[in-house]
Amino acid sequence: MATLRKLAHRVDRITSFHVMALLEQAQQLEQQGRDIIHLEVGEPDFATPEPVVRAARAALAAGQTRYTPAQGLPALREAVAAFYERRFGVSLAPERVVITPGASGAIGLVSGLLFDPGDEVLLSDPGYPCNDNFLRLVGAHPRRVPVTAATAYQLSPALVREHWRSATRAAWVASPSNPTGTLIGAEDMAAIKQAVDQQKGALLVDEIYNSLTYDQAPATAVGLPDTAASLFVINSFSKYFNMTGWRLGWLVAPAEHVADLAKLAQNFYLAAPTVAQHAALAALSDDCIDIYEARRLTLARRRDFLLRQLPELGIGVPCVPQGAFYLYCDVSALTDDSFSFCQRLLQQAGVAATPGIDFGEYRAREHIRIAYTADESRLQQALERIAGFIRQEAAGEV
Amino acid sequence: MATLRKLAHRVDRITSFHVMALLEQAQQLEQQGRDIIHLEVGEPDFATPEPVVRAARAALAAGQTRYTPAQGLPALREAVAAFYERRFGVSLAPERVVITPGASGAIGLVSGLLFDPGDEVLLSDPGYPCNDNFLRLVGAHPRRVPVTAATAYQLSPALVREHWRSATRAAWVASPSNPTGTLIGAEDMAAIKQAVDQQKGALLVDEIYNSLTYDQAPATAVGLPDTAASLFVINSFSKYFNMTGWRLGWLVAPAEHVADLAKLAQNFYLAAPTVAQHAALAALSDDCIDIYEARRLTLARRRDFLLRQLPELGIGVPCVPQGAFYLYCDVSALTDDSFSFCQRLLQQAGVAATPGIDFGEYRAREHIRIAYTADESRLQQALERIAGFIRQEAAGEV
Repeated sequence: MATLRKLAHRVDRITSFHVMALLEQAQQLEQQGRDIIHLEVGEPDFATPEPVVRAARAALAAGQTRYTPAQGLPALREAVAAFYERRFGVSLAPERVVITPGASGAIGLVSGLLFDPGDEVLLSDPGYPCNDNFLRLVGAHPRRVPVTAATAYQLSPALVREHWRSATRAAWVASPSNPTGTLIGAEDMAAIKQAVDQQKGALLVDEIYNSLTYDQAPATAVGLPDTAASLFVINSFSKYFNMTGWRLGWLVAPAEHVADLAKLAQNFYLAAPTVAQHAALAALSDDCIDIYEARRLTLARRRDFLLRQLPELGIGVPCVPQGAFYLYCDVSALTDDSFSFCQRLLQQAGVAATPGIDFGEYRAREHIRIAYTADESRLQQALERIAGFIRQEAAGEV
Repeated sequence: MATLRKLAHRVDRITSFHVMALLEQAQQLEQQGRDIIHLEVGEPDFATPEPVVRAARAALAAGQTRYTPAQGLPALREAVAAFYERRFGVSLAPERVVITPGASGAIGLVSGLLFDPGDEVLLSDPGYPCNDNFLRLVGAHPRRVPVTAATAYQLSPALVREHWRSATRAAWVASPSNPTGTLIGAEDMAAIKQAVDQQKGALLVDEIYNSLTYDQAPATAVGLPDTAASLFVINSFSKYFNMTGWRLGWLVAPAEHVADLAKLAQNFYLAAPTVAQHAALAALSDDCIDIYEARRLTLARRRDFLLRQLPELGIGVPCVPQGAFYLYCDVSALTDDSFSFCQRLLQQAGVAATPGIDFGEYRAREHIRIAYTADESRLQQALERIAGFIRQEAAGEV
């Protein structure tokens, strides 16, 4: 019998995350009774706060189970806008907020709105790999620009100007960044916006880890002047708000593009999950923000602990991450093959980390990502295991 | 200040549903105190059953708020597979079931998996318009084949053979169909599958209204022989299961494509909403099926009532719909402009219906879609209003 003539070409270009293979091995080890410390997980280890769960249960009891408008519940759009005012002192019209099924929904909308086949978009290498695949889905090309600790692993205004060419349509940055946890300062963000506007391009800012910052107050690109109507800010209830499984995010878009975005939303997903939207109203309340701030301080302590300890093991963190819950670690003193390093670390020491090759190509084989989504005692244990592993490897090499 | 050089070209080709303009007018009329009967709504008027809501509340209380695997909860994939066995006597491996955020998620996955820019897909005109836009998102071309009551408004094996050309990659059918409510018989479905396989193409079957059939037992394409691994069946918890706002659907795919589909899911939406997945487990229970079957009989009575009454008003239903909750009505005796007809019907009689032009081009100006998502007394009232409206129009024309 005949089989399909072909699959879409993009399927081959979309690679599975290498960490998935490691996770499978980790599960096998766990089934054999091994204890694995998971430092590879990009999901907060905090449960959704009780008031949020309570709000969801109340919404369900009240029969809130139907479609909402495509742009989201008006009350939630207003609550998100009010959150920007309260937290950042930024005034935002609720009409510019589009509630989406996860940040993924927001990324899909913006990709659908802006990019044609052949268009190019500038991103940093390393960076979050799914973004490339959203671009590929619509036929556009991700152009990954190598970045170093010199620019905090971020696109700088100079890099944007240098790499922009005729097919480029946008720069896409993340602050805080996954996998590096680094930020883009307010001045740089404004200068990137200017560089993009000079080219009549768009600026996409991934603020999925927004509000998860340490040592300095959280910032947002939402307040940037935008007479060019070119600024798209993506956010999520998954990370700071600990609502991963609820699948809820939002987009702040120029007012003049919201009607088109709503049209795309109607076609591509109808609306974000209703119960999650009602729950999110509680997540934005002052009571919950107090809970989230306490958890943020816990994350800060974990980060500080790792930043003190890792260098003693010969693992460098060249650029102190000010946000998210990741450390992008230079392991070039230990390996030039981050994947097999992570495999051995898992097999021999029972510690799972994500190899740099999941986030790009540039020096990716010399880096690993450590997520501090485990409590301090587990982190302590992980460090002891890593230390033992490194000693063992060094001894083996002699 | 500069503005964006361009938006994506697809944005202009994706038209808003005309019914949205009517809905806006309906809301204005309602704000003025007018009573509007809504026969345009594609959402069941039944609330999610209590046992489903209870299961969701229990899952939340148990802290089920994190990501599930990308393919969905194993228990839910098994429950869906068991449902096919129980209802249709079809044996299905749970590994072939991919749980998705709404049927939209399933459509996105299949489009991403199968279609490159320039590929063509055959669909019926009239048909569900969002499908075209999923194809446009990935650069593929929907080719709408005009269909008539002679083939129950469906693609036939002969039409598929006749319209297939070198760029064609798939036929995409819906049974029951939106907007016509008609089915594809088992023999025709098998013959379409054969025609598609001869061309090494794929067959996409939209079964979103599956289980909502009248006069005859529900059927599914899932049991078709598929050694070609070319059959993709899309389903949803929204319609029969009354779970619209939960955003949950599923895809039955050939086993050999599931790994690629999971890869796409990981990239494009991570996983379907967790609480909805737990709730859906209850929706598939025998207790809930009893509730759904009672509701199906209610819909059957509404359909029968309208099928008896509408012809007396000069509104034809050329092909008796055996499924979904729609009547595709021939109003050519009354108008050759379905949109302005719907507008006048709304303004003058307070009845909202969907103009045919929302579902294609072929004779679209001579048809309207009526959804029987209102109870029988409201339907009775609607018919009286429509009768008065038609008398008035006839008098005005004299």
